[in-house]
Amino acid sequence: MALYVQKYGGTSVGTVERIEHVADKVKSFHDAGHQMVIAVSAMSGETNRLIGLANSISSNPTPREMDVLVSTGEQVTIALLAIALQKRGVGAKSFTGWQVAIKTDSAHMKARIEDIDTVAIRKQLDAGNVCIVAGFQGVDGENNITTLGRGGSDTTGVALAAALGADEAQIYTDVDGVYTTDPRVVPNARRMEKVTFEEMLEMASLGSKILQIRAVEFAGKYKVPLRVLSSFDDGPGTLITMEEDSSVENPVISGIAFNRDEAKVTVTGVPDIPGVASKILCPISDANVEVDMIVQNVAEDGTTDFTFTVDRNDYAKALEILKNTAAELGARNVSGTDDICKVSMVGVGMRSHAGVASKMFKVLADESINIQAITTSEIKISVVIAEKYLELAVRALHTAFDLDAKD
Amino acid sequence: MALYVQKYGGTSVGTVERIEHVADKVKSFHDAGHQMVIAVSAMSGETNRLIGLANSISSNPTPREMDVLVSTGEQVTIALLAIALQKRGVGAKSFTGWQVAIKTDSAHMKARIEDIDTVAIRKQLDAGNVCIVAGFQGVDGENNITTLGRGGSDTTGVALAAALGADEAQIYTDVDGVYTTDPRVVPNARRMEKVTFEEMLEMASLGSKILQIRAVEFAGKYKVPLRVLSSFDDGPGTLITMEEDSSVENPVISGIAFNRDEAKVTVTGVPDIPGVASKILCPISDANVEVDMIVQNVAEDGTTDFTFTVDRNDYAKALEILKNTAAELGARNVSGTDDICKVSMVGVGMRSHAGVASKMFKVLADESINIQAITTSEIKISVVIAEKYLELAVRALHTAFDLDAKD
Repeated sequence: MALYVQKYGGTSVGTVERIEHVADKVKSFHDAGHQMVIAVSAMSGETNRLIGLANSISSNPTPREMDVLVSTGEQVTIALLAIALQKRGVGAKSFTGWQVAIKTDSAHMKARIEDIDTVAIRKQLDAGNVCIVAGFQGVDGENNITTLGRGGSDTTGVALAAALGADEAQIYTDVDGVYTTDPRVVPNARRMEKVTFEEMLEMASLGSKILQIRAVEFAGKYKVPLRVLSSFDDGPGTLITMEEDSSVENPVISGIAFNRDEAKVTVTGVPDIPGVASKILCPISDANVEVDMIVQNVAEDGTTDFTFTVDRNDYAKALEILKNTAAELGARNVSGTDDICKVSMVGVGMRSHAGVASKMFKVLADESINIQAITTSEIKISVVIAEKYLELAVRALHTAFDLDAKD
Repeated sequence: MALYVQKYGGTSVGTVERIEHVADKVKSFHDAGHQMVIAVSAMSGETNRLIGLANSISSNPTPREMDVLVSTGEQVTIALLAIALQKRGVGAKSFTGWQVAIKTDSAHMKARIEDIDTVAIRKQLDAGNVCIVAGFQGVDGENNITTLGRGGSDTTGVALAAALGADEAQIYTDVDGVYTTDPRVVPNARRMEKVTFEEMLEMASLGSKILQIRAVEFAGKYKVPLRVLSSFDDGPGTLITMEEDSSVENPVISGIAFNRDEAKVTVTGVPDIPGVASKILCPISDANVEVDMIVQNVAEDGTTDFTFTVDRNDYAKALEILKNTAAELGARNVSGTDDICKVSMVGVGMRSHAGVASKMFKVLADESINIQAITTSEIKISVVIAEKYLELAVRALHTAFDLDAKD
């Protein structure tokens, strides 16, 4: 008998028929004697419907009230799934975020889980019931409803698994595993059997969109075995493991991630003195704008240039803030663009193989794609290129690094 | 400066435009310096949409999960109204039932309010904010979400007014006051300026559908002045007062109420011994079926007959229970029908005027309408007749008792 936490996303519970299908799946696990905790998203389309209602009233609704509004989406799903299980003779109990309670900080619309009280869930599990928990939501210290940000239901699932010491967190989605890259861009992308947390973290943060980055961080931190599966088809999915598989030779590159949702801002001619980087970045982070890539070059005249990338939704805000900071610092110029994308090669095998970067740059050069910025980590190389080259770049790299499916 | 609790029903918040209109109304009160607490229903159609989702999964969803499901309807409205007020520069804070907290018993789908914690609301009022509270919902002692039953938002409004010691509870609805009878049945029905709690209680319980009976009970018990107004038009509405207006002569009859949602069950030939009434009614009330009229006649052979009316939705259940009880008691026969209606004349003036009943019966006889059962109270006479005669009966009585509008 195992304890599984399963998470079903919006398309997996998108209709009443899909919810019935999920109930069948959960029942089969329950019938096999497993203890089951299910985290669910809102039915697909519902969150956007609710946001649309708010936006038709105000272009700038307050985050607190947005959380009150959109958290109803998951609350509908937990009730419907509980009803579907009860119809099948399976004892089930639904929990909103505050009923669990999933305690978060007070950063509305992007809250972080601080603690999960497992007493109420344990009691129901011990009574033989399936627990169905609203994903994506929590409650802060003043009883305000919070949400973890879009896609945060994954984090709910993994955090529940960690808090409960579950045997596996299983993330059901509309794809049957983690691929070497997005199959919509590269049709012969391959499903990976296993991927390391490190690789997955890089893939998720770079926009592979299968799992939320915080969910992978949580899973890695608390050593929760994590599996990505399809709620539509049967199949083993992809297991996200703690360690590199030393029994087989690792491929140099495991996958190629990309992200279209970024924008780039650059400030040039900043006096090159200690503390200048933090003076530039502090106002940005104070405004809750998350910065992704940061590149600094030293110029020759005692000044330096900074480039960084932000979420495209934060582009206007970041540019505005940067202009103010630049004026204060006496910088020469501020510029930016939002028609870029980021392409990243990820692989733990990269550590022991030289020449990955140079091969990558050559592949792009052969396609006449100009590289606007580069960053690297131990297991990743990222480049910023013009958005229009995204598909071309990813396909060329996928083939060049031998990732195409063989059949 | 006064403290008003206003309640807006489903049609009053049925669209984004209607919510904006409510925000304008609330802002005008707030700008005039009043402290405002607003209780709202779900947007019209939303509760039925949610119930439809549940029913498409199960014909018998559990009440606990139904409450989790339908309570999302009001939660959406509080967020949207708060956003609309904030857009207008009015500080506003939304509260779900559990956030207030509105504490209820655990009778899911028909819970009763036991206590309202006013600390959180007071704090926001003192800070100059409008408080927007989800109607119709609460939380029980085990943190389960409960609902007060359909239409229960009125009760929320009045209970909040009582708990806060508000100057007036104002129930905004889609009619501009309480009428002598339903204007859809009698086109020249008249709006009443004032009506007593006693009369209103009889009108509400008999199906005039403007106010929930529990709301009126609450208001009467805690002496909360209650006003019914239209959210669509301006106008004074109808004030529900504590005392009869002794300065003018009361009309004999204030209004005519009716209810189509009833069914009648009869058990005949029950041994006429002490305790038999409770033996018949206890199993019914144990099944949470509410009984309205109860009529008992003594027959001549040492047996007696009982007739009572129940909500039409409970008809099949009540008949089933009664058949079992009848068998145990050795009763002769059980019968029932659900094509009846109840018509009631209500008026505090009735106390001091003889002959109301006989005049009522004569009016019905003149229209050849057969009376199936009669009950009376100090300020009310009710008859059960075939449903097909409802309009005919109400119109004839409305004219005969001089209630038609004069113009």
